[in-house]
Amino acid sequence: MLHPDRLFPADPTTRDIARRLYTGVKDLPIISPHGHTDPRWYAENEPFANPASLFVIPDHYIFRMLYSQGIALEKLGIPRLDGGPVETDPRKIWRLFAANYHLFRATPTRMWLDHAFETLFGLTDRLNAGNADRFYDVIDAALKTDAFRPRAMFERMKIEVISTTDGALDDLKWHRMIRESGWKGRVVPAYRPDAVVDPEFKGFRENIAALARISGCDTDTWDGYLAAHRQRRAYFKTFGCTSSDHGHPTAATGILSPEDAAALYARVITGPVSAADAEAFRAQMLTEMARMSIEDGLVLQIHPGSFRNHNAGIMESFGRDMGADIPQRTDYVKALKPLLDQFGTDPRLAIILFTLDETVYSRELAPLAGHYPCLKLGPAWWFFDAPDGMWRFRDLTTETAGFYNTVGFNDDTRAFPSIPARHDVARRVDCAFLASRVVAHRLDEDEAHELAYDLAYRLAKEAYRL
Amino acid sequence: MLHPDRLFPADPTTRDIARRLYTGVKDLPIISPHGHTDPRWYAENEPFANPASLFVIPDHYIFRMLYSQGIALEKLGIPRLDGGPVETDPRKIWRLFAANYHLFRATPTRMWLDHAFETLFGLTDRLNAGNADRFYDVIDAALKTDAFRPRAMFERMKIEVISTTDGALDDLKWHRMIRESGWKGRVVPAYRPDAVVDPEFKGFRENIAALARISGCDTDTWDGYLAAHRQRRAYFKTFGCTSSDHGHPTAATGILSPEDAAALYARVITGPVSAADAEAFRAQMLTEMARMSIEDGLVLQIHPGSFRNHNAGIMESFGRDMGADIPQRTDYVKALKPLLDQFGTDPRLAIILFTLDETVYSRELAPLAGHYPCLKLGPAWWFFDAPDGMWRFRDLTTETAGFYNTVGFNDDTRAFPSIPARHDVARRVDCAFLASRVVAHRLDEDEAHELAYDLAYRLAKEAYRL
Amino acid sequence: MLHPDRLFPADPTTRDIARRLYTGVKDLPIISPHGHTDPRWYAENEPFANPASLFVIPDHYIFRMLYSQGIALEKLGIPRLDGGPVETDPRKIWRLFAANYHLFRATPTRMWLDHAFETLFGLTDRLNAGNADRFYDVIDAALKTDAFRPRAMFERMKIEVISTTDGALDDLKWHRMIRESGWKGRVVPAYRPDAVVDPEFKGFRENIAALARISGCDTDTWDGYLAAHRQRRAYFKTFGCTSSDHGHPTAATGILSPEDAAALYARVITGPVSAADAEAFRAQMLTEMARMSIEDGLVLQIHPGSFRNHNAGIMESFGRDMGADIPQRTDYVKALKPLLDQFGTDPRLAIILFTLDETVYSRELAPLAGHYPCLKLGPAWWFFDAPDGMWRFRDLTTETAGFYNTVGFNDDTRAFPSIPARHDVARRVDCAFLASRVVAHRLDEDEAHELAYDLAYRLAKEAYRL
Repeated sequence: MLHPDRLFPADPTTRDIARRLYTGVKDLPIISPHGHTDPRWYAENEPFANPASLFVIPDHYIFRMLYSQGIALEKLGIPRLDGGPVETDPRKIWRLFAANYHLFRATPTRMWLDHAFETLFGLTDRLNAGNADRFYDVIDAALKTDAFRPRAMFERMKIEVISTTDGALDDLKWHRMIRESGWKGRVVPAYRPDAVVDPEFKGFRENIAALARISGCDTDTWDGYLAAHRQRRAYFKTFGCTSSDHGHPTAATGILSPEDAAALYARVITGPVSAADAEAFRAQMLTEMARMSIEDGLVLQIHPGSFRNHNAGIMESFGRDMGADIPQRTDYVKALKPLLDQFGTDPRLAIILFTLDETVYSRELAPLAGHYPCLKLGPAWWFFDAPDGMWRFRDLTTETAGFYNTVGFNDDTRAFPSIPARHDVARRVDCAFLASRVVAHRLDEDEAHELAYDLAYRLAKEAYRL
Repeated sequence: MLHPDRLFPADPTTRDIARRLYTGVKDLPIISPHGHTDPRWYAENEPFANPASLFVIPDHYIFRMLYSQGIALEKLGIPRLDGGPVETDPRKIWRLFAANYHLFRATPTRMWLDHAFETLFGLTDRLNAGNADRFYDVIDAALKTDAFRPRAMFERMKIEVISTTDGALDDLKWHRMIRESGWKGRVVPAYRPDAVVDPEFKGFRENIAALARISGCDTDTWDGYLAAHRQRRAYFKTFGCTSSDHGHPTAATGILSPEDAAALYARVITGPVSAADAEAFRAQMLTEMARMSIEDGLVLQIHPGSFRNHNAGIMESFGRDMGADIPQRTDYVKALKPLLDQFGTDPRLAIILFTLDETVYSRELAPLAGHYPCLKLGPAWWFFDAPDGMWRFRDLTTETAGFYNTVGFNDDTRAFPSIPARHDVARRVDCAFLASRVVAHRLDEDEAHELAYDLAYRLAKEAYRL
Repeated sequence: MLHPDRLFPADPTTRDIARRLYTGVKDLPIISPHGHTDPRWYAENEPFANPASLFVIPDHYIFRMLYSQGIALEKLGIPRLDGGPVETDPRKIWRLFAANYHLFRATPTRMWLDHAFETLFGLTDRLNAGNADRFYDVIDAALKTDAFRPRAMFERMKIEVISTTDGALDDLKWHRMIRESGWKGRVVPAYRPDAVVDPEFKGFRENIAALARISGCDTDTWDGYLAAHRQRRAYFKTFGCTSSDHGHPTAATGILSPEDAAALYARVITGPVSAADAEAFRAQMLTEMARMSIEDGLVLQIHPGSFRNHNAGIMESFGRDMGADIPQRTDYVKALKPLLDQFGTDPRLAIILFTLDETVYSRELAPLAGHYPCLKLGPAWWFFDAPDGMWRFRDLTTETAGFYNTVGFNDDTRAFPSIPARHDVARRVDCAFLASRVVAHRLDEDEAHELAYDLAYRLAKEAYRL
């Protein structure tokens, strides 16, 4: 099912170049500097329960597409907030998924799944209603063996290092357990403080109180609150953390005086918070995080631009993260200027920018990253982490920012078996892109080999200081 | 002139796949679920007058390009509002058009015209000043024969069903005449109520009064006004109507309480209307139309984003629809949320979204359609209904929304002889796109054959409930 | 190093067509209707000083990329405003540049440099740390010969005509010196009045005073100020000027009454200027410039959308034009309407529109240029003046605006040795684009040959009235 030339250009000469480039990088270890796998998996190393709970139920790429074609989330076993009845038989969920596998034609989800089925489970035909049970049985049997426990899969996938994403209030007990277990797999946390940075985050004030408890700092004051962040960041660093991550609605940054910032903080932790104050506070906090990055060396990742939980009905019945996050227009040029005015020329600062608005690749992000030493471009993100999206990213950024202001690949996934597939897609697309430049004599092949290695391995490691 | 491989990829392997896919769909009947042909043609079945009045004078794609290069509209026979002199000799108009045929190089207009010249009239050389008279004579002679009357052409074009677009105040007499004639051609209306929904539409209040007369409802009240819409929709349905269509400046939708909506309605039908009230009323009416769609099953089409009649001088001299409609930035994520909050999870609702702002394909429309069951994406529209535009549509939507959240092709034309050409272009481009995915092993060829059929025929029929 | 097929499509059939098209245009003289070379070069005809001052120090494309990777501008010899120490040894600067040549992989800068090294200096290997000194020595020796003085290079490059860009206050003494020298090279100025049109331009009021002195007009009044512009434009025309050029933050145009315009002018030349007044004044001045263009025949170029000098730290240490200009979202549809309402149908008016926001190509600019006779599209600009950017320009504009509403190529450069390289890239990309349309049977090859000539030579000459 997996053709050795998949994703390579059609033209035979270009395809040959792409093949040669890919040969040099296909077996490199995986650097996964940003993602959402659960550290508990590696800590406890328990088997995954069944095919549906491994592949279908936790993957919003899958259930959003099925839902879009009229399949109720209840039938896919997604738990309702009210505890109402949902399908609990994993085999029935699997059959429904299999019968609708055609919906994923030409999507990345299909490619990741085919890759996992074949390389992990030896399943080489196309999933459909007819072979659904056989797929289920093969996968289910495999999952019950030691070779498919999380650590064994981690090693088989050749993951050199993986970062999870962890809330500021997380005690990192799973990370501690991994460390203390003596297992050699390198799993590090990333500092994601949205719940204590975004006044519109659910439970913000309770989160601030918890931050005080967990950090021992007095979060009733602006200075205490900042000290708590510093404390947590230092704590995360003891587990190998090298980056923070921020998922804001916009890329706005702020440049308030300490007095104004303290006053704003006092407002957001007490009275009802206006939308303007919430935005101003998030903006100021990006600048504060940049300041702390300069101090402690964590790389600052900014992931802006998603309208979260757009579907009110689904939000009410099923809660957050149900595939209803929709990108919006996002501006960076004015948004980042306050932060850059303050820290933009500091050689210690490292910021990685992401976007869900492809119009900014050529207009804003490549010109910014092609100038500011502190700015680099994260790879094509989320909806765009797919062959066409990756190609557009390179097409729209390379002429202005080059390759060396980008940071290699992030798989950004909570779908564990998709990790090798995702890195393989990125390597293939980058090799195809490089081959297209070689065949047009815009790049020499020896340079392309070096770049293929850099994009597959070196840049991620260096940009994330791993 | 028409090469059998036109629009297929250059790479020989990919081209072969595209050819095979196209062979399976090229002769399928035409489903034309959205367009602007005149029902009177089919009702009266009178011959078209002459080549200029068939091809040039009614086609704003043609005269906007000629005008852009300094050719006065008067010389093309476009009537002036003041009745001032314009060219009336169709042969002179034709010669001017022919002498400037090079302006259309690599545009879709050129492709549609070449297709019509060759397939309908057997003219196989390229139009130019030298052969203009011969083209004129051949076409003119053909138009005088029964084989070129509208119904005969309709049948020769293998149109299985075509929808016209009809104002809410239209008595549908031509549709009635078609039904009563016993002719088997299937021509259905679509409900386009802009003139009684948009307070900034010319003659809005007179239109509302006419709506009262034609519906028998009391349009002085909000409830009566809504009842009038229900009445007209039901009337349209008796002629086979399956969809409504809405051409608003933005995609804004509203979610007013019945009281606030009634108060807003009272304002827009009495005093001078503010721009804000006009926008709020159009927005609320999209939501009302969605509510009625749930009740009566009409599919809701939204065509937003055009700045109409941008050229003030042309508007003054020649009036509306003179090729001066210019797209604008259009946002959907916040705009559609009020409607979706109210009806977004109702399984009976079907909305087809169009855009003139290609930046929203990947950022907003594909994520929305890849989630909401009620939303599907209309094909590349208007300026983008052309090979490059169609390709970008697929490139930018498929990875997120797949193929099955799209609805096949609309020709959307008032240029009758261009209908087969337009569907042929769409089929060729879709086959080329599918072939590019097959050759990169992202899709199997058997799947591509099924998809080619779906995109050319099945999806349009199902999405429009035809 | 320079492969004869560079930038041509990979598919052999398409490549053959591209080669044939290119053969017909590669040796055409260069029309350079918009650029930033220094007229003093041609006037004095002094040798260029050394490789670093010819290639590195004045080229913000080069030093912005080096800076983005952490190389201090001081090390590249960029002078500081405070006169602080910077590198002064051109050989050391050259070595630093050479050691980082890999940063430019797949960027246009790399392509332009390789072209200049090989065609002007016979250097056929790839620049790197190892051959840096040899490159330096070869170039330095050549620059000391008469064959590398500006006029000799101008002639060798086959420049038929070049336009410089000159401030409204410029006395054009170098242009005068060129004329009086008897040299046959055709060098003309362009009228760029930003310094006396933009109230936010540094020294605006002093500039207005200087305008009074140089024009002899009373710039204390609105009428006198407009008369001064007319006087300067007429003066520029005596040196062959055929165009004006305007670099505004937005594309806004105005339509004030003479009284309101006079009042606005009085405000901007006296009290502190609000941002709104500054924008309104720039907007009004674009309309005034259009009025003058109708009178005197200068072609009006609009270059909007750059956030100038975005990096506050660099602005403070090094001043303007240090590679920190970042594009922003730019709207044209509403922005241009006031000007177009007043002059949009005047057959004497010629406006050339540029953009740094590629989203407007298909949404706004192609529809506008495909309708208004006074509007044409300038080529892909600045960051987009590169193979991928040029391809996107054609891909996104041709179906709506055709080729004949575009104006051929601008090199827009201050990097003298890059001029032939830039025109060569444009010719190759256009031939590649045309070939892709020929191979898909969207265009006949004889038409493509004519178009290749038009795009390489004729359209620029005609659009700029040269």
